[in-house]
Amino acid sequence: MTSTPAPIAFWFDFGSPYSWIAATQVADIAARCGRPLHWRAFLLGVLFRETGMAPLSEQRLRGAYAARDVARLARWHELPFATAVAPPGCSLALARVFHALDLASPSLAARFAAAAMTATFGHGAVLADLPAAQVFAARLGPEAAAAAAGAMAPPAREALRATTQAAAQGGIFGAPFFVADGEPFWGQDRLPMLEAWLREGGWSSRGKVS
Amino acid sequence: MTSTPAPIAFWFDFGSPYSWIAATQVADIAARCGRPLHWRAFLLGVLFRETGMAPLSEQRLRGAYAARDVARLARWHELPFATAVAPPGCSLALARVFHALDLASPSLAARFAAAAMTATFGHGAVLADLPAAQVFAARLGPEAAAAAAGAMAPPAREALRATTQAAAQGGIFGAPFFVADGEPFWGQDRLPMLEAWLREGGWSSRGKVS
Repeated sequence: MTSTPAPIAFWFDFGSPYSWIAATQVADIAARCGRPLHWRAFLLGVLFRETGMAPLSEQRLRGAYAARDVARLARWHELPFATAVAPPGCSLALARVFHALDLASPSLAARFAAAAMTATFGHGAVLADLPAAQVFAARLGPEAAAAAAGAMAPPAREALRATTQAAAQGGIFGAPFFVADGEPFWGQDRLPMLEAWLREGGWSSRGKVS
Repeated sequence: MTSTPAPIAFWFDFGSPYSWIAATQVADIAARCGRPLHWRAFLLGVLFRETGMAPLSEQRLRGAYAARDVARLARWHELPFATAVAPPGCSLALARVFHALDLASPSLAARFAAAAMTATFGHGAVLADLPAAQVFAARLGPEAAAAAAGAMAPPAREALRATTQAAAQGGIFGAPFFVADGEPFWGQDRLPMLEAWLREGGWSSRGKVS
């Protein structure tokens, strides 16, 4: 078959530390599986209002555990680590700039996303308002700087709104979330399963053993 | 060193399908790492009342996802599969019998736990009241049958109560949950990380790379 392989959709929120860990791994997995990767930044907080779920950091026991778990994951994967809690505002500011870049160049937007999450969680950068996010984007070069300037223009705002709506309609209820060939995978810890699923073409044909 | 290695504590609830998947894997991990395994059945529902969390099956989107995810995990690991939702009452009935067996023989209790969860989730058995749970235990032999008869006696009831209280006091907020050398791991999907942690003696000595 010479048709383009179907992409892996990578749904993420810039404020989600597990999205960051996933972002450091998922491109390699897509490459190994010969799949394009579609980076989709959405606003998890908007979905939480619909599902009644709460951010990890607001859940007493799970929040403390997650902070420890993210630090441990970072050490395990030899990533830099500064914090598991994104500064307030960074999710929205970075998502706005991401979509402005994405309209110009999806690959540039993906580079921006990976770099911004590593800056936030790995190095403690505070990219929590639009100017800070735009300045950060400009480090990727003049094309990025020019595109980031449109973060508050209608096309970028509409892209973010539509992506978040698509997440809600698609049953995405957390981040990171992956969809490949219609199969949903929730959480960074599902990446090995996603890769196995893609390599083996799913396991429905194995049937039930019972 | 000739002292006994510290055990891995395996906290589980009989109504948790992810506890079942973990139960099919954790004994092998403990054996590979040269650690004893301490099976600790507790009542997750009691903890939920304290943490404000809810069972997966009562969460709209997550519940539907979890049902699909457990079925998929079972296929991946070539386990039998019947349901991801335990019958009401099975968590309490099986935990009572487990603790009666555990007082007589921890290894017998562990065999019972593994078999009962595979029966429940793998084959759709309804072990949802005390007589059914006791009859199931009796299949493991006369020692199990005799011990299971004490499921409503004060020692077994007190063991279940104390274990659930120890879970709450120990910060256990979900199932399955593992603790090794003081390090907490939540979820079946953390088993590879638990094994890596034990093999490498943790990663705190690696320090931060930032």
